[in-house]
Amino acid sequence: MDKHQEVTLLIPGPTPIHPAALAAMQWPMRSHMDADIFAYNDQIVADLHLLYKTGPGAFVSLLSGTGSLGMEAGFANLLEPGEKVLIISNGVFGERMIEMCERLAANVIPLRFSHAQEVDIEAVRNIAFETSPKLIAMVHGETSTGVLNPVAEIGEIAAEVGALFSVDAVTTVGMLEFDMAAWGVDYAYTGSQKCLSAPPGLAPVAFSERAMQAIAARKTKVSTWYSDALGMEAYWAVGAKGRKYHHTIPVQLHWATGEAIRVALSEGIAERSHRAHFVGEATLKALSTVGFGAFIPEKFRLPTVLAVTLPEGLDDAKVRQELRSKYFISVTGGLGATAGKIWRLGLMGENARPRYYHRLMVALAEILDAPELPKLFDEVCTVA
Amino acid sequence: MDKHQEVTLLIPGPTPIHPAALAAMQWPMRSHMDADIFAYNDQIVADLHLLYKTGPGAFVSLLSGTGSLGMEAGFANLLEPGEKVLIISNGVFGERMIEMCERLAANVIPLRFSHAQEVDIEAVRNIAFETSPKLIAMVHGETSTGVLNPVAEIGEIAAEVGALFSVDAVTTVGMLEFDMAAWGVDYAYTGSQKCLSAPPGLAPVAFSERAMQAIAARKTKVSTWYSDALGMEAYWAVGAKGRKYHHTIPVQLHWATGEAIRVALSEGIAERSHRAHFVGEATLKALSTVGFGAFIPEKFRLPTVLAVTLPEGLDDAKVRQELRSKYFISVTGGLGATAGKIWRLGLMGENARPRYYHRLMVALAEILDAPELPKLFDEVCTVA
Repeated sequence: MDKHQEVTLLIPGPTPIHPAALAAMQWPMRSHMDADIFAYNDQIVADLHLLYKTGPGAFVSLLSGTGSLGMEAGFANLLEPGEKVLIISNGVFGERMIEMCERLAANVIPLRFSHAQEVDIEAVRNIAFETSPKLIAMVHGETSTGVLNPVAEIGEIAAEVGALFSVDAVTTVGMLEFDMAAWGVDYAYTGSQKCLSAPPGLAPVAFSERAMQAIAARKTKVSTWYSDALGMEAYWAVGAKGRKYHHTIPVQLHWATGEAIRVALSEGIAERSHRAHFVGEATLKALSTVGFGAFIPEKFRLPTVLAVTLPEGLDDAKVRQELRSKYFISVTGGLGATAGKIWRLGLMGENARPRYYHRLMVALAEILDAPELPKLFDEVCTVA
Repeated sequence: MDKHQEVTLLIPGPTPIHPAALAAMQWPMRSHMDADIFAYNDQIVADLHLLYKTGPGAFVSLLSGTGSLGMEAGFANLLEPGEKVLIISNGVFGERMIEMCERLAANVIPLRFSHAQEVDIEAVRNIAFETSPKLIAMVHGETSTGVLNPVAEIGEIAAEVGALFSVDAVTTVGMLEFDMAAWGVDYAYTGSQKCLSAPPGLAPVAFSERAMQAIAARKTKVSTWYSDALGMEAYWAVGAKGRKYHHTIPVQLHWATGEAIRVALSEGIAERSHRAHFVGEATLKALSTVGFGAFIPEKFRLPTVLAVTLPEGLDDAKVRQELRSKYFISVTGGLGATAGKIWRLGLMGENARPRYYHRLMVALAEILDAPELPKLFDEVCTVA
C-alpha cells in the first residue's frame, strides 16, 4: 500500500480519525498500572457518564476490543445459560445478536422484521408479555440498512415486563441524542471508530446499576473471563475495590478515544446531530437528481448512515472501484440482503463534513457525466 | 498527566514502543475492507508464519484484543463443554488458564507446582497418561515469577498421549527461539506490547493445521462469536473462503504490529535473544553487589523477565515510587504470592537496551547511596 495516500472515508465506519485522537497516540508510553493512566481513565469514566447519560450507580468503561465484543460482552454478562432473551431484529446486526446468544446457550426468542422495515412496537409488547424475557435486546441504528429503531418505546415495554434492556448504540451514541437513564437502558455499547472518530479497537460500554446488580446475583460465573464486567470493574473502579490488574489495556487507544470523547462533548451532541442531518440532506437532494433514492422512509431513517438506492443500470462494484482507485474515495455497498442494491454513506463524527461529500459530488459528476452535482450539493450545504 | 513526559519502562510489558510502530499509527486511515488492508494483512500472515515457525496448514492472524483474549480464544476454540484439559501451572498466568477453562465448563485437570518452581516433566507425563486429556496447556515464560517452562519436552508428552498442545508465548515469541512445528505446539499466542514492542491491543495467534481440523470437527459452536477461529479465518484467508467481513479490525494497531514484526524478523531472534541475555546478566551482576539476588535459578530462568529478590530492609513500594516520580522510571513488583518480595524487570523488545538499564543504575546509585552501580553495569554491558 502507499502509506502516504489519503483516502476519503465516506463509509459507515471506521471514520476519519479526529486530529486530537491521532495526536494522542504519540504521547509517551505508560504502564497500564501507572497513576497517570488511572487518572486518565477516571476522566474517561466521567465523560462516558455524560456521553451515555447514565443514571446513578452505572458502571462505564472501555472494553479492550471492538464494538462486536461490546455486543457479546453484554449478552455474556447479563444472561446465564437457558435464560430468555427477546431479540428484535431488522438487519444484519440484529441477526448477529441472535447468533451470539445462541452460542451462549441462552433461550433465544427472535422477533424478526424484514430488513429495512420499522419495528412494530405492539408486536414487541405482545411477545414481551407472552414470554417474560430476562433481557430485551435491540439495535438503535441498524448500520446494514440505515434504519433508526425506537429505543425509548421499547424501553417502556422492558420496564412494563420487568426485563433488562440492552441497546446497540454503535452508530448513534456520540452523534445522536442517547439517554440511557430516561430510556431505561441497562446496557449500551459502541465502537471507538464510529461516531467518536477515534481509531477502531475499543468498545465504550455502559452498564446500569440494575445491570450490575443482576451480574452480581448470577448463579454461574460469566463464561468469558476477558469481558467479565466484575473483572473490568476491579480495574476501573476507584477506592478499595478498584485499581487491580486485570489485563493490559490498549494504552494508545485509551488516549485516542479519551480525547475523541472530549471533542464530542465539547462540540455538543445537538451540534453533531445537526451536522449529520444537513450533510445527509444535501447529499440525498443532490444524488436524487441523478437517480439515487432514499432507501428508508424519513420517518425511521437513521441520520448517521444514509442508505441510498442506486440509479437504474449503475454498475455498483465498478463505480465504487473507480471512486476508490481514481478519486481515493471509499464508499460501502449493501451488506447481506442489500448487497448490490444500495450504498451506505457514513455521517458519523468526522465523516459528517460538507468538504468530504463535496469530493464525492465532484467525482460522481465526472463518472456519471452530471456536472451540476457539486453545485446542487453546495446550494443546500455550504462547504465548510 | 503530563503528556510530554517520557517514562523509562523497565516493566514486563508494555514495553517502549518501537519508532517504526509508532510512526505506522499515523498512516492515513483505511477501511477494514480496503484492498490495501488485505494486502497488508497478507504480509502480516507471511511474517507470523516465520515468527512462530509454523508447519504447513497453520492459520495465523491478529486477534482484536490483548494477550489475555488470545489465551481465552485458544480454550474457547479447542475445548467443548466437558472435555478434558490438563493445565500445568506454576504462576499467576497458569492460574488464569485454570480460571478461564472452568468458566468455559471444561473438565479441568490442574497440575500445580509451587510458584517459582520448575515443572516436573515426569509428573506431567504420568498425569497425561492417566487422564488422556484432549488438550494440554502451559505458559512458556511465566511473567509473574520469571520462570521459563520446558515447551519442547511437554510437546513430546502431548504427542505421546495424542493431545493438542497450547502454549502461552506472551513473554517469549519475538525475543526467544520459538519453534511451533518442531515442538508440536497446536496453538500459541502473544500480546503485541510484549516482545514485539508494538502498542498493546492485539494478540498475534497461531493455530496448527491439526488445531484447525479439531475446530472444524466440533459438535457445538464456539461460545464466543468474536474469537471464533473460523470467523477470523473468513476475514483473513485469501481466495474464495476469505476477505469476508467479520468485525472491524483495529487498523492502526495492525499497522504498528505489522511493522514491529518486520523489525523483529529483520534483527533476527538470535540477536534479540542475545540482547535480553547480556542486559539481564549485567543488571543482575551490578544489582547483586547491593543485595539484590536472582529469584530463579539459572537453569530455568526466563531471559525476558528478570525477577530479583530485594535487599534486606529495602522498602519496595517507596523505592519504586521514588524511581517513578523522581527519575521517571517504571519498575514492577511481584504479582500474587510474590508481591512485595521481588521486582520483575522486563527485557523484551525495546526494553532490553543497555541505555535504559543504565538509567536504572544511575537512579539506584543515588537512592541506595551506591555510586559504583553504573560503572559496574557498564563493565559488563557497554552502553549502546
